[in-house]
Amino acid sequence: MEFDPRDVVARKRDGVELSAGELRAFILGYASGEIPDYQAAAFLMAAYLNGLTAKETAEITTAMIDSGDTISLGRIRRPKVDKHSTGGVSDGVTLVFAPLAAALGLAVAKLSGRGRGHTGGTLDKLESIPGLRTDLSPEELERQVEEVGCAVASQSKDLVPADGALYALRDATATVASIPLIAASVMSKKLAVESDLILLDVKAGSGAFMKTARAAEELAMACVGLAEHRGRACRAAVTDMSQPLGSAIGNALDVAEAVMLLRGDERGRLRELTVAFAAEALEQLEERDSSAARAAAERSLDDGTAAERFARMIEAQGGDPRVLEDPWSVLPAAPVRVEVVARGEGFLAAVEGEELGRIAATLGAGRIKKGDPIDHAVGLEFRPKIGDRLEAGEPVATVHARDESAAEAASERVRRAVTITPDPATPPPLVFGWHGGRR
Amino acid sequence: MEFDPRDVVARKRDGVELSAGELRAFILGYASGEIPDYQAAAFLMAAYLNGLTAKETAEITTAMIDSGDTISLGRIRRPKVDKHSTGGVSDGVTLVFAPLAAALGLAVAKLSGRGRGHTGGTLDKLESIPGLRTDLSPEELERQVEEVGCAVASQSKDLVPADGALYALRDATATVASIPLIAASVMSKKLAVESDLILLDVKAGSGAFMKTARAAEELAMACVGLAEHRGRACRAAVTDMSQPLGSAIGNALDVAEAVMLLRGDERGRLRELTVAFAAEALEQLEERDSSAARAAAERSLDDGTAAERFARMIEAQGGDPRVLEDPWSVLPAAPVRVEVVARGEGFLAAVEGEELGRIAATLGAGRIKKGDPIDHAVGLEFRPKIGDRLEAGEPVATVHARDESAAEAASERVRRAVTITPDPATPPPLVFGWHGGRR
Repeated sequence: MEFDPRDVVARKRDGVELSAGELRAFILGYASGEIPDYQAAAFLMAAYLNGLTAKETAEITTAMIDSGDTISLGRIRRPKVDKHSTGGVSDGVTLVFAPLAAALGLAVAKLSGRGRGHTGGTLDKLESIPGLRTDLSPEELERQVEEVGCAVASQSKDLVPADGALYALRDATATVASIPLIAASVMSKKLAVESDLILLDVKAGSGAFMKTARAAEELAMACVGLAEHRGRACRAAVTDMSQPLGSAIGNALDVAEAVMLLRGDERGRLRELTVAFAAEALEQLEERDSSAARAAAERSLDDGTAAERFARMIEAQGGDPRVLEDPWSVLPAAPVRVEVVARGEGFLAAVEGEELGRIAATLGAGRIKKGDPIDHAVGLEFRPKIGDRLEAGEPVATVHARDESAAEAASERVRRAVTITPDPATPPPLVFGWHGGRR
Repeated sequence: MEFDPRDVVARKRDGVELSAGELRAFILGYASGEIPDYQAAAFLMAAYLNGLTAKETAEITTAMIDSGDTISLGRIRRPKVDKHSTGGVSDGVTLVFAPLAAALGLAVAKLSGRGRGHTGGTLDKLESIPGLRTDLSPEELERQVEEVGCAVASQSKDLVPADGALYALRDATATVASIPLIAASVMSKKLAVESDLILLDVKAGSGAFMKTARAAEELAMACVGLAEHRGRACRAAVTDMSQPLGSAIGNALDVAEAVMLLRGDERGRLRELTVAFAAEALEQLEERDSSAARAAAERSLDDGTAAERFARMIEAQGGDPRVLEDPWSVLPAAPVRVEVVARGEGFLAAVEGEELGRIAATLGAGRIKKGDPIDHAVGLEFRPKIGDRLEAGEPVATVHARDESAAEAASERVRRAVTITPDPATPPPLVFGWHGGRR
């Protein structure tokens, strides 16, 4: 019997569980261009509405991985940890985590993505350092990680090519927000690269794609399940994105904030979460106990060893390592800065995180549509956290803009994105919980 | 706000009722090529799974009609009746109905389709008459109907172009079997042509697309609702397709059978149903009472007036009118004929109608895939009806084939497509019921 993609679509339409062979033929057929976009679009909508079982999701993920090359990092002797965030606002964890883990004796070969919608992307942030390259070949990546302990590079087109095609199609057909399809997309890329541990940061809240902790938990468990299916170690944290994680929402601004953290000059939720991920990696890979692992991570930030790894990584990738000593001598700064002050007094009760991300994107820090250029200099700094007491007229944010009118429009939107109440507001937890089996 | 087709897809995905403006923009955007196949495919699957309300279906139908030209038949003075069947096996009603209605003083400007899957198509059947043209221009169609009373022509590409595009996409994406989408497809084509009455024959049973009377009823009511929405008179009958309606399953064979009926030489269900439709048209358009209308229709078949209209129609369209006197002097005959005999004795309890249609298509009478050529000479004659008493060895069917091996394979399949039981079997009703308001 000849394989007819319509049968696969019809069975998913009718809620039948598809076989491994059917799903594999469908995904690989789509990746190779034999199955047209419109049949895949019908399949995606049927999968969105009727769901995919854990088994189906695993088969799709495997087929996606097999649609391209995989990266083996066999020459690297240190324990390899990979880390991925589902995307948030002021989520600079990777910039700090990679050199911090390297300083702790681990290896981080991180393939990163670009900003999407209201969320920032690690590659965009790093590229605000003049001269820095992210297009490392697999050989360059492996060599740098072996020598420095860390590298952050762009994903090559040959790694999980099915994901790029499917993501673009999902984006065009209103089928992005399907948990199994998101899990397959995230995990296919992580599973295609060799590592000893995958750490996932699944964001939940107003600044994340998953608006509730419950939805984020479901995604975290789906991802962990896919790792287990491939015999890979994976731990996933559901973390708060009801407000920006750090202060910086932009690109150069995020690098400057990462430098502050790496020099031990900044406390707060961004540092806390980065330390939590580094400690988790040590616990899993080096069998350290929880408090010793955390203390080691804190120490590496405070004693300059993480910062030193960062400088070496930047230099290895062609950037100017002086960004560590004097960020603004290297990074591009925006010509216009405007302070935004609180409209009333009281407690910061809520922040529209997605709106802050969109404001930064409108300023030029992100892409309104695919392929838009990035202005690395612009963005926002938004400093208070939920629960903080604010006085009327107190500066809460700084807008970094290309011109006065953009700055003014952004300031007004920032003012409207915060809710100040007379009653004390409770800060949300930073980490809602961890998922995935310990070793 | 710019129109984004993704919003329409997302709202249908979420089960929201779409506005007239959204649906119109989406359907016309697809018909004009501005909206790509993949977005339409996602929409179709969402509509298949979440359904379409009567209001949405009406808006889609209106937009489909407005995607192309409409045909006004203003010069025709006689009452105009149009007739459509949802497709069946040995469904030669149109071939007889058009000249019969013309003989009764009505006008039939019938735009017909090709065979699809296991079902035959009136155009394919008529074209087995050498020289006969079906590509009449709107002017030719109007003139012939005014002069002869009837014409059967192919639909031009400019009539409801959205339907052709959407049907092909539905076929490729497993979204054909949606009642609102079928109703919109059927009715857009009927409503785009001026008429005083639309008669629908909605087939139900093993040889039809709707396998149950209940599903066929739902489709009939959806179609009638679309006519009402446009202020058009429409009556829809749900009729039996649990067995072939007539005996002939092919093309030339169907024309020969139609000639027998038009000469008053054949009785049975095909004649009965054709008379029922002609009588319904007279009741609706000429206010005749039921029994007088039926008697008039029977008379026209028996006194040769319907036959005479058929001959004039064939001649007007370039065919040889001698087909009426001596069909096989005009029609192509198959070189091989094989009788199929009953395997046992008893009562005919069931016939796999769809399978008989597929056997005929395999012989060459239909299209296995789009664009296949038609062999007008081949096909089947299947004579007994459910409930008939059969003796072992009694001939039940004749296979008309291009060669011996095709005939043998078809004969074996025909034998397997019938169920003979020792207990008497009850014949199914011919008409399950009529839908749609009387004038």
